[in-house]
Amino acid sequence: MTARPSLSLSGEKLTAVYQLKGSVEQARARAEDICVEQTVEFPVDLIERSDIRDQVIGKVVSVEANGPDRCLATVEFPVEAAGRELTQLLNVLFGNISLKPGIRLMSFSLPEVMLEQYRGPRFGIPGLRALIGVRSRPLICTAIKPMGLDAEALADIAYRFALGGVDLIKDDHGLADQSFAPFKERVTQVTDAVRKANRETRGNTRYAPNITAPADELMNRAEWAKTSRAGGLLIAPGIVGLDAMRRIADRDDIALPILSHPALQGSYCLDSESGISHGPLLGTLNRLAGADASIFPHFGGRFSFTPEACRELKQHAVEPQGNIKPIWPVPAGGMGVDRVKEMVDFYGKNIIVLIGGDLHRNGDDLAKSARELMARLPGWLET
Amino acid sequence: MTARPSLSLSGEKLTAVYQLKGSVEQARARAEDICVEQTVEFPVDLIERSDIRDQVIGKVVSVEANGPDRCLATVEFPVEAAGRELTQLLNVLFGNISLKPGIRLMSFSLPEVMLEQYRGPRFGIPGLRALIGVRSRPLICTAIKPMGLDAEALADIAYRFALGGVDLIKDDHGLADQSFAPFKERVTQVTDAVRKANRETRGNTRYAPNITAPADELMNRAEWAKTSRAGGLLIAPGIVGLDAMRRIADRDDIALPILSHPALQGSYCLDSESGISHGPLLGTLNRLAGADASIFPHFGGRFSFTPEACRELKQHAVEPQGNIKPIWPVPAGGMGVDRVKEMVDFYGKNIIVLIGGDLHRNGDDLAKSARELMARLPGWLET
Repeated sequence: MTARPSLSLSGEKLTAVYQLKGSVEQARARAEDICVEQTVEFPVDLIERSDIRDQVIGKVVSVEANGPDRCLATVEFPVEAAGRELTQLLNVLFGNISLKPGIRLMSFSLPEVMLEQYRGPRFGIPGLRALIGVRSRPLICTAIKPMGLDAEALADIAYRFALGGVDLIKDDHGLADQSFAPFKERVTQVTDAVRKANRETRGNTRYAPNITAPADELMNRAEWAKTSRAGGLLIAPGIVGLDAMRRIADRDDIALPILSHPALQGSYCLDSESGISHGPLLGTLNRLAGADASIFPHFGGRFSFTPEACRELKQHAVEPQGNIKPIWPVPAGGMGVDRVKEMVDFYGKNIIVLIGGDLHRNGDDLAKSARELMARLPGWLET
Repeated sequence: MTARPSLSLSGEKLTAVYQLKGSVEQARARAEDICVEQTVEFPVDLIERSDIRDQVIGKVVSVEANGPDRCLATVEFPVEAAGRELTQLLNVLFGNISLKPGIRLMSFSLPEVMLEQYRGPRFGIPGLRALIGVRSRPLICTAIKPMGLDAEALADIAYRFALGGVDLIKDDHGLADQSFAPFKERVTQVTDAVRKANRETRGNTRYAPNITAPADELMNRAEWAKTSRAGGLLIAPGIVGLDAMRRIADRDDIALPILSHPALQGSYCLDSESGISHGPLLGTLNRLAGADASIFPHFGGRFSFTPEACRELKQHAVEPQGNIKPIWPVPAGGMGVDRVKEMVDFYGKNIIVLIGGDLHRNGDDLAKSARELMARLPGWLET
């Protein structure tokens, strides 16, 4: 390669904070390694061009101890390394180093010039409140299931929940396009059922079908949901790819609130020493990729998130981030009606509480169970 | 929900083996939990329909101890739960339980009726051999980099490597569509350079540009690569989604061999107690999703895969799997010329050896470095 220094980058940087195993000295060496691995991925001594060495390779800003044998390192990358693409941003932040142990992405922040490349959530917290017409209380969401029911039975369940006045009804994330209740048939019947209930109650329940689907079907499902007058979309970005969700969120002719489901993403955040922490994974990245709400397992349910993880996730979901709107934390995962008050105390009122199976506990009168939940809500908010 | 048993499923099952923490008794309980979590995700006692309980929920086939405080559990799911979609298959195999600690997917197998839904790799091992015209020796691949070079400089590097007779040249996985070397310009110039070298040497070097890109760009890049007469494609399914790669692999009018890059997938396999093991992650799933070759870090390089992990990966890449062709293991990650013989001894001759930076060690005469490597290859194969 001939040496002809010619780069003149903007000087704008994106910043990432990694938790690294080891002493400060060891962590500094690992952070320097990250700077190379995530950009040029090439032996530095073999790079003849000083401008590439100086401008393209990341830079370690700071390394500090953060507990025994553990440090936090702040690294800056030139925005040009990530280009204008969410896919390459993911690659720079954590692509190859996902394969190295003892590195955990704790947070990242983008400069204004980069944030402007992303529309982010179309609705976010204020937008979804306006859409549903609920000023300050938490929103209540439930799910239609179990897998195995036909579209008619699922529509019947949705109808009853809508009669009971819940704000949102989503497909169980396991409902795709199986023979039990094929996607198009299900969406048609459930949207009809929810509209019927809304007419009867003068309510405004919104149904979000699960459009997680093969790459060549995803957009068709989003369009079918829109045409069927669904009220939102459920997408699992861990399955379809974060940018596939972003693409749907950006479509002005779809313009439905998006609930992001964490299926297949747990492996990123479970091990506290590697992967991507809950906040950037389910908060910041979901926001960049256009989700309006991020579903995750609240602590103390069927899953294993800690209170700290849930707090971090909420913080990343709502903290100021340029033009990118704050989004709804959706604590879930085996939550019962008896925990709503605790969740409101923990997260505040800007949450969507997702209660699934527990609303079936009192038998077939789902409308009554839902109505009772909605009626108890104001009381939980007072103290 | 009204009780009207009506399901009549095929009885065909997909089988998954999970490693679970705990005693056999504990593991059995966890396996039963997986059967529910990954299908109906609903309190079993509230499911009135016996046909759903009996036919939709997964079944534990066996649980056996596999080391201290560790078991292997085999679980069967009805094929109907996964429908006919790779996305929903991923969801059934590991969607929600990715969020639960101490569960690791060790392998899975699909019945014939399900394998037939997948085309798998278009070329695989025999197909790529035929395409390149190399009967039995390992293939040699290198990469053009570093990020920061312009298209002309990258094309010049590719030209020299092609003169040296390597079989494959891929983009560094960090080359996307940055201002340094925009995708279209890069692909045009590099394909031209490689064709020129091939004419001069009467060789057959193939160039695989990195088409990892936003969802609305991915197919355009594949098409641009095809139109530019590129010789293959590099895709990181961890970034774009496995099924997005499958979609490209299935396109008859593209029909280029696909190298799968593991960026962002490390978090699935790093922790030995959770996630998805190397074999199913980088072997079986890559095959189902149409990759012809799976790049991964060989042990003893910059990364941390163990020899056992590499062996497992190779096994899953080549073991018989119905109509799904065996694919190429591509050991990589800081490999030097001096390790080729060892890699051949370890994996056999059906590998693509990926050597990047090390071919630059002897200065600018990359053609000479490549030629020497190709010349030494036969000697390494004799013993």
